[in-house]
Amino acid sequence: MAGEGKSKKGTPGYVETRYYNMPAGEEFVLESGVRLKELRIAYETYGELNSRRTNAVLICHALSGDAHAAGLHKGDKKPGWWDDMIGPGKAFDTEQYFVICANVIGGCKGSSGPNSINPATERPYGLSFPIVTISDMVDAQKKLVEFLGIKKLLSVCGGSMGGMQALQWAVSYPESIHSCIPIATSYKHSAQQIAFDEVGRQAIMADPAWNGGDYYEKDHPSRGLAVARMVGHITYMSQQSMEQKFGRMMKKKELGYEFTTEFEVEGYLRYRGDNFVKRFDANSYLYLTKAMDYFDLLGDQKLAQLFKGVKARFLVIAFSSDWLYPPFQSKEVVKACKMNGIDVTYCEISSDYGHDAFLLEFEEETKLVKHFLSRTLKKVEK
Amino acid sequence: MAGEGKSKKGTPGYVETRYYNMPAGEEFVLESGVRLKELRIAYETYGELNSRRTNAVLICHALSGDAHAAGLHKGDKKPGWWDDMIGPGKAFDTEQYFVICANVIGGCKGSSGPNSINPATERPYGLSFPIVTISDMVDAQKKLVEFLGIKKLLSVCGGSMGGMQALQWAVSYPESIHSCIPIATSYKHSAQQIAFDEVGRQAIMADPAWNGGDYYEKDHPSRGLAVARMVGHITYMSQQSMEQKFGRMMKKKELGYEFTTEFEVEGYLRYRGDNFVKRFDANSYLYLTKAMDYFDLLGDQKLAQLFKGVKARFLVIAFSSDWLYPPFQSKEVVKACKMNGIDVTYCEISSDYGHDAFLLEFEEETKLVKHFLSRTLKKVEK
Repeated sequence: MAGEGKSKKGTPGYVETRYYNMPAGEEFVLESGVRLKELRIAYETYGELNSRRTNAVLICHALSGDAHAAGLHKGDKKPGWWDDMIGPGKAFDTEQYFVICANVIGGCKGSSGPNSINPATERPYGLSFPIVTISDMVDAQKKLVEFLGIKKLLSVCGGSMGGMQALQWAVSYPESIHSCIPIATSYKHSAQQIAFDEVGRQAIMADPAWNGGDYYEKDHPSRGLAVARMVGHITYMSQQSMEQKFGRMMKKKELGYEFTTEFEVEGYLRYRGDNFVKRFDANSYLYLTKAMDYFDLLGDQKLAQLFKGVKARFLVIAFSSDWLYPPFQSKEVVKACKMNGIDVTYCEISSDYGHDAFLLEFEEETKLVKHFLSRTLKKVEK
Repeated sequence: MAGEGKSKKGTPGYVETRYYNMPAGEEFVLESGVRLKELRIAYETYGELNSRRTNAVLICHALSGDAHAAGLHKGDKKPGWWDDMIGPGKAFDTEQYFVICANVIGGCKGSSGPNSINPATERPYGLSFPIVTISDMVDAQKKLVEFLGIKKLLSVCGGSMGGMQALQWAVSYPESIHSCIPIATSYKHSAQQIAFDEVGRQAIMADPAWNGGDYYEKDHPSRGLAVARMVGHITYMSQQSMEQKFGRMMKKKELGYEFTTEFEVEGYLRYRGDNFVKRFDANSYLYLTKAMDYFDLLGDQKLAQLFKGVKARFLVIAFSSDWLYPPFQSKEVVKACKMNGIDVTYCEISSDYGHDAFLLEFEEETKLVKHFLSRTLKKVEK
């Protein structure tokens, strides 16, 4: 739990991942209708729940994230993935708020997913794990939040796939959140977003080591997953940031006239690809991209119906150079809020970092989130 | 040759691919210093060369193109790749101009490339074929043009990689062209352009069937090449055109909750990928993307030096929604022209088709090209 370890100023100190297991006898019913008899959710918390239980904030992670959002695991040098935003005095101030982050269902970092053991076969599920949706992720989080004794979250926040979960909370459990902070996201996946995901999936499935998803006791489909990650990384950066960071810089001074890694940008992508396969499961990549592609909060409804009955306040954040989840998609969310008289603030942060900006522009985000959360808490406690 | 077959109004009729073979004893020296003792160039021509030999126009093809730019091959139903632009009364009016198109060196459609037979081993070159550059492609075209008895081209034109060749002509052989029409291109490959190419190459190389490039007598790396093509196709379309064409349309009415091709856009990409492997060689994909990544006309020079001494007129065309070769890159070409007092016309065509627009917006292109060519011919014949 937060603060248990040696606390560094500004960080939640040493933290541990904990596990919620659905009580025996209960069932977890997925959107597809499939029923899971076992459900495990890995989670971390930072800060303390107040006596009125009004200060809980749920952070939802993106495709490659996990429950370890902040602080240090013993023995590690790198803090959690959003440590810049979570800690004493930070945007999600752990001296004021009780911050929760959980690995999504379908993930590979401790929650039930394709790399979990199927109780029926005592072998990893692989592709026999049921398809999960963003709505299923949120339902699993709801179970965890209830288990932690929280009836209503002060806020639910996330970027990218995390933002989809935040939006899904507003629709699935409107009475259970006081506010919603979707960042660099969309209320539905577009054709181009589906297309990039499909390329990643095809790259994985084209790797013979993938073997129909049954590889856990053998070589993993590392080359396919690395290619998928490389495609992803291009979409996370902007044209400008790639040009500024790499341009046409080369590893050697002269062209080699051979098929080696000659440009810095090639080396960077390969490094990112190769590193990713050490920490991520290829099947989870399939499941989570599929969940995003299925995501369409609107369906056959009109935009005005999207947030009908929602009373939560919204802070919607987008980034100018994000071409994977472009600002116009965030503006559609804002429009849907306005149509329902929801108290919504929209901010497009000017940034060259592309989609990655939601992880990098933490100073700008801090100003917005800090103010928004404290106003929300004041309203709640009034 | 053009018009030999039964001529359909507006098309050059039946055409045949011909072959230029470098005379025995000559050598073709590549930019890398490697010397080829054999060089074959596949080409087609449409229209007739006039007696003063002033009406020759060279068309340069893009990554997946070939010498068959217009007209019909006997038995085929589909005409050449730019038939909309080349033919009687069209932009490249074959009643006025003698139009040439040649497969690039490094390609797989009849010109010397990795799938050619290495005279030293009597087996396909594979990766022992030397790396080629855009400058090498142009040098090979120059040999062909001379063989055809043409000292100075009325124009050299191409889109995408073809545009790079057009620009290279202006720099390599400024005295040999009266005009240059680079479309949807850049004078150097950017970090993002290199990055997308590298993903394609890695997808091919990750396919075990690629086998270090030595696969011609075995199974080809079809899955890897298909993934490379899928990535490419996303970059050829715009966000808007993908949304308009596919949106979230599905093959079936309901979500299947399984890893099948469910969205139309997925099916389209797979179809494009699977079709491409039937007609294109994976090694050529490596060679041609590498040539583009090496392309940097500027190098260490200043922009003002880029077209020093060039007297050709320029018509530079870009497309508003092309994010692979965005208009700002064409504007840089225009700037370099202006700095050298070159007669340059720039036109940004408003289009939703993305990079593909150079193949699809032929009506707009026709207006521009037709006028530009006829003015150029008038100046030449004055």
